[in-house]
Amino acid sequence: METYNIAVVGTGAVGQELLNVLAERNFPVGDLKLLATERSAGKEVEFKGKKYVIEETKPESFKGVDIALFAGGSASVEFAHHAVAAGAVVIDNGSAFRLDPKVPLIVPEVNPDAVKNHQGIIANPNCSTIQMVAALAPIHKNATIKRIVVSTYQAVSGAGAEAIDELMEQSQQCLNNNSVEKNVFPKQIAFNMLPHIDIFLENNYTKEEMKMVNETKKILNDQSIQITATAVRVPVVTGHSEAINIETVNKITRKDAIEILQQTPGIIVIDDPSNIQYPMPIDVKGKDEVFVGRIREDESIEKGLNLWVVADNLRKGAATNAVQIAELLIQK
Amino acid sequence: METYNIAVVGTGAVGQELLNVLAERNFPVGDLKLLATERSAGKEVEFKGKKYVIEETKPESFKGVDIALFAGGSASVEFAHHAVAAGAVVIDNGSAFRLDPKVPLIVPEVNPDAVKNHQGIIANPNCSTIQMVAALAPIHKNATIKRIVVSTYQAVSGAGAEAIDELMEQSQQCLNNNSVEKNVFPKQIAFNMLPHIDIFLENNYTKEEMKMVNETKKILNDQSIQITATAVRVPVVTGHSEAINIETVNKITRKDAIEILQQTPGIIVIDDPSNIQYPMPIDVKGKDEVFVGRIREDESIEKGLNLWVVADNLRKGAATNAVQIAELLIQK
Repeated sequence: METYNIAVVGTGAVGQELLNVLAERNFPVGDLKLLATERSAGKEVEFKGKKYVIEETKPESFKGVDIALFAGGSASVEFAHHAVAAGAVVIDNGSAFRLDPKVPLIVPEVNPDAVKNHQGIIANPNCSTIQMVAALAPIHKNATIKRIVVSTYQAVSGAGAEAIDELMEQSQQCLNNNSVEKNVFPKQIAFNMLPHIDIFLENNYTKEEMKMVNETKKILNDQSIQITATAVRVPVVTGHSEAINIETVNKITRKDAIEILQQTPGIIVIDDPSNIQYPMPIDVKGKDEVFVGRIREDESIEKGLNLWVVADNLRKGAATNAVQIAELLIQK
Repeated sequence: METYNIAVVGTGAVGQELLNVLAERNFPVGDLKLLATERSAGKEVEFKGKKYVIEETKPESFKGVDIALFAGGSASVEFAHHAVAAGAVVIDNGSAFRLDPKVPLIVPEVNPDAVKNHQGIIANPNCSTIQMVAALAPIHKNATIKRIVVSTYQAVSGAGAEAIDELMEQSQQCLNNNSVEKNVFPKQIAFNMLPHIDIFLENNYTKEEMKMVNETKKILNDQSIQITATAVRVPVVTGHSEAINIETVNKITRKDAIEILQQTPGIIVIDDPSNIQYPMPIDVKGKDEVFVGRIREDESIEKGLNLWVVADNLRKGAATNAVQIAELLIQK
C-alpha cells in the first residue's frame, strides 16, 4: 500500500484529534512528523502505539513531507509557503487562507471536486461553518436556499485545551462559591453565555460571525445566498449547536427535509419529539457525523424551515474534515 | 397610605422573588397571605422582617384578598376563579389564561392600558416573551416589525428551584467524573444544551416556542407580525438570553436602534464592542431591566436588525413584571 509522509503542525486539542482521526480511519501514514512551537518541542506523543517527539516548526521542517496538516492558529501564515515550496500539500485548519481565491475551501460531502484546483494549500473551513454547510447543502440542492439566519451555541473546546480547563476550574470555583479566575476568555464562561467569539470587526459583527457568512458562500459556490449570524460561546465542553432558520425558493416540508437528510452521507437525523429525541452536545462527542433535529416548517414565512444542528467541533468541525480532505487528495 | 391585602400563591423560586420585589418596591401590602400546596404548608417565610406561615391553598383562601399573585404552574387553573369570586384581582404567572380574549396580557412598559379591560384575571406573559417584547416594542413603534426569528438560551431557574439544584448537582457529578442523576430535566443539563422547553406540540414546535409566537402578537396587539422561535435550555442558573433577528417595514440603523432603546424606560443598552461590553446572564441577576446589546444591521436583508437580549427570568421575566402589573392596578 502506498503511504504518505505526514506532518501535523500543532499539538493542542485539534492536533491531538488529528492524530486520533488519522489512526481511526487508517490513513496510510508513512513517516510522521509532529511539529509545534518551541514551548511544546521535546514532548512525546503516541500514535498507533509508537512514540514521537515533538519538534519545533522551522522553515526546513517540511522536507520529504507529502501532506502537512496545520491544526490552526497562525502557524500556517508563517510556514505554509515553506511547506508548499518543499513539495507538501498543506491542509490548513486556520482562517488565514480560507477566502483566498487560489485556495479551495472544502467540506468533502459538499464540494469534493474543489480539491482538484489546489495550488498547494487547501483550507479547512471554520468549525461552525462546516456543520451548517454539511446540513444545508443537500437542502440547498433540492430547494435553493435564499437566506440563512443562524444563532450558534459553541463549546469552549473550540478555543483550545486551556479553555476546557478554564471552564472546569471556573465551574468548580462557582460551586464552591469562590471567586472566578479568568485567563482564556475575557469574561466568566462557567454558568454564563458570551455573545462573543473571535474579535469584533468594524461592522460590529465578530470575525466568527463573518466566517459563517463568507465561508458558506464560498463552499456552496453561491454568492447570492444571504446569511446573518450570531455566534455565542456557551459552557459546554465539546459539541457546537446551531439554531438555523432558512428561507427557500421552493417549498420544502419537514417530511421532505428529513428524507433528504437521511439519505445524505455524514448526516444523522435525530428528530422524534414524541420520544424526546433530538441532538445534544453530550451525545456527539467523538462522532464524525453532523446531527440534525428539531426540523420544523417555519410558520412565519411561506417557504422556510428551522433546524437544530449539532456536531463535535474538534472532529467534523476540525480534525475529521481535514483528514477527509487528505483522503480526497490521495484518491486523486 | 392605602394598603392592599395580598395573597402570593406558590412559594418556589418565583414565589420567593415576588416577595422580594413587593418588599423592594415598597408595594403597599396590607395583610399578606402565603398560599401553596399541602407539601409546603406550615413552613415559615419572612417578609419585611415579619414571619408568615404558609397555608394550603383552598377555594375559601381568598376572602378579603385584594390582589392574588399566582407564581405559576397550575394553581390558577384550580383557584383563580375562586379568588375572583371572593373579590380579588388575580395576576397569574401561569400560562392557562394568557391567550383568553377576556384576559389582558401585560408588559407594563408596552401595553399598560390593557389593565383597564380586566374582568378579574390579568395574565403575566411567559418569561422569554416578556424580555423580547420589552426590547422590540419601541422598535416596532418606530419601524414596524414584519418578522421575528428568535433563538433562546434559557436558564434553568425558569424550571424552578429544584432545577437549579439539579444543574449544581450534575455539574459537580461531571467535575468528579461520576454518573449524572436526572430528576427535573429529561436529559443531562450540566455542560449540555436541550432544544426542548415545555412539551412538544403537534406542529413539532414546543409549547414554549409557540408561547413566544402567540403572546407576542397579543401583547403588541398586532396579528400581522410573523414570528418563529427555537427555545433552548442552557446550563446557566439565572438569566435568559435571546438572539433576535427582525425584519422591519422601515429601515432602522444600529444608531437609531440604540437611541430608541436608550430612551425606553426599563431597557439598558450595553453595546460597546471595542471595550468588550455586552449583556450576559451573570450580570443581570437581581436586575429588573431588560438588557440589550450586539445591535447590528442585518446585512442579509435590506431592512433588518440583530439584537442580543438578556434579562433575569425570575425578575422582569416573572416577579417584577407581575408586581408592575399590580402597581398599574392600584394606580387606576
